[in-house]
Amino acid sequence: MTPPHPTPPLTETSLQSLWLHHQVDRFNAAYAAALDEKRYADWLGFFLADAHYRVQARENFDRGLPLCLIHLESQGMMKDRVHGITQTIYHGPYHMRHVISPARVIELERTETGEVLRAEANYAVFRTKPGGVSEVFNVGRYLDEFTWLDGALKLRSRHCVYDSEMILNSLIYPV
Amino acid sequence: MTPPHPTPPLTETSLQSLWLHHQVDRFNAAYAAALDEKRYADWLGFFLADAHYRVQARENFDRGLPLCLIHLESQGMMKDRVHGITQTIYHGPYHMRHVISPARVIELERTETGEVLRAEANYAVFRTKPGGVSEVFNVGRYLDEFTWLDGALKLRSRHCVYDSEMILNSLIYPV
Amino acid sequence: MTPPHPTPPLTETSLQSLWLHHQVDRFNAAYAAALDEKRYADWLGFFLADAHYRVQARENFDRGLPLCLIHLESQGMMKDRVHGITQTIYHGPYHMRHVISPARVIELERTETGEVLRAEANYAVFRTKPGGVSEVFNVGRYLDEFTWLDGALKLRSRHCVYDSEMILNSLIYPV
Repeated sequence: MTPPHPTPPLTETSLQSLWLHHQVDRFNAAYAAALDEKRYADWLGFFLADAHYRVQARENFDRGLPLCLIHLESQGMMKDRVHGITQTIYHGPYHMRHVISPARVIELERTETGEVLRAEANYAVFRTKPGGVSEVFNVGRYLDEFTWLDGALKLRSRHCVYDSEMILNSLIYPV
Repeated sequence: MTPPHPTPPLTETSLQSLWLHHQVDRFNAAYAAALDEKRYADWLGFFLADAHYRVQARENFDRGLPLCLIHLESQGMMKDRVHGITQTIYHGPYHMRHVISPARVIELERTETGEVLRAEANYAVFRTKPGGVSEVFNVGRYLDEFTWLDGALKLRSRHCVYDSEMILNSLIYPV
Repeated sequence: MTPPHPTPPLTETSLQSLWLHHQVDRFNAAYAAALDEKRYADWLGFFLADAHYRVQARENFDRGLPLCLIHLESQGMMKDRVHGITQTIYHGPYHMRHVISPARVIELERTETGEVLRAEANYAVFRTKPGGVSEVFNVGRYLDEFTWLDGALKLRSRHCVYDSEMILNSLIYPV
């Protein structure tokens, strides 16, 4: 069997990697908490004013097709969606529970004014309807672009690519 | 689109945040391993002598109601429970598998004698009965209060708030 | 209630623990992405040339029995398996989605030539067949032995111990 090799030392680059992944994990945990506790107004706060939020089936994503289940192109559209789900859409209520894996930082792109962080994370959302058992509702991958605003991480874009074309009933709340 | 902003530097505070989250994640991984490997006697060791352990439906938790499915108010009561599940309760056996998301540290409260760490984590527990397939068993959120005892993190309180009022058969083992 | 104790300081040992766990988490996220995106040729690259890859039911593992569902004893055998699943095996296609919990480093064994890192992580794999809903497919635990090759973490051995003897249809792709 291949003899073991030495551990690489903890360098400045390693610390930077730790720090970036930590920020994304902390962000995702707070994001999940907001949705799972139905604090939809807080959900808006995870995005920049001109951010995009998309929920798309993997079938379309993999083929490069544009059709999304949800495609919101600004915080204003997200606000409208939140109004819809809390005030106007008639639907059977359900609880969500997100379990998000540790994130995977893809790239930190440096520009003249700052940095754009590209990251991914796998997620599983479980749904519980009143009186029912918890079920697998939506599983997939977040494809994210972050930047920092006043020192806090914000989404420029979150693209939720889910594996199943078949949605249990309908997807009302953002994932 | 909003131009990217600079990454905040890795400061002492960032390192402290990394370190706290890491401790909780490591704790949760060890906690899950103890339960999933059915080392129930080890499970006791994650708690302080006067710790509380509660398992409560979200319906009751959200309404501020006190009723819990399990409410143990000391390590002694936990020991009794472990005796029950291993020696006296007649039940169909099953395996558990915990998948716990990266933790979310809420607060580090400093007191005269030390610190109390408040943290949360989403969990999914899968159940497998002999000869059966793995099923979603219990999903929810750990609401935790930790402190340190001789340098090791210990639970003062773990409150498991699960989403489904409906339990598949019954919940025998702690989650 | 037990009074709170002081937080242990962030030492060299703590930083080393952070760094090791981070490397494994990052590895697992990249490993999951390769499989979930069906980049099976990339999957090979996570292993050393003489690495072992096993998928075994918990029933057998717990009894110390040798029988595995899959037992590959080198990268060559893995390559053959990849050829099989992509070119020759006739099977219904499905998507996988891995949600892997933060890893649990068990031991860093130092030898004359380098280090061997033993770690574990709980995983849940969800399966989605075309036109179907996402289902719990395979849940279990990775038992891993890593070493470093040119500074990159590589598996000497990954042992996937899954909870259910009952596999939905069959397990075609590696988990």
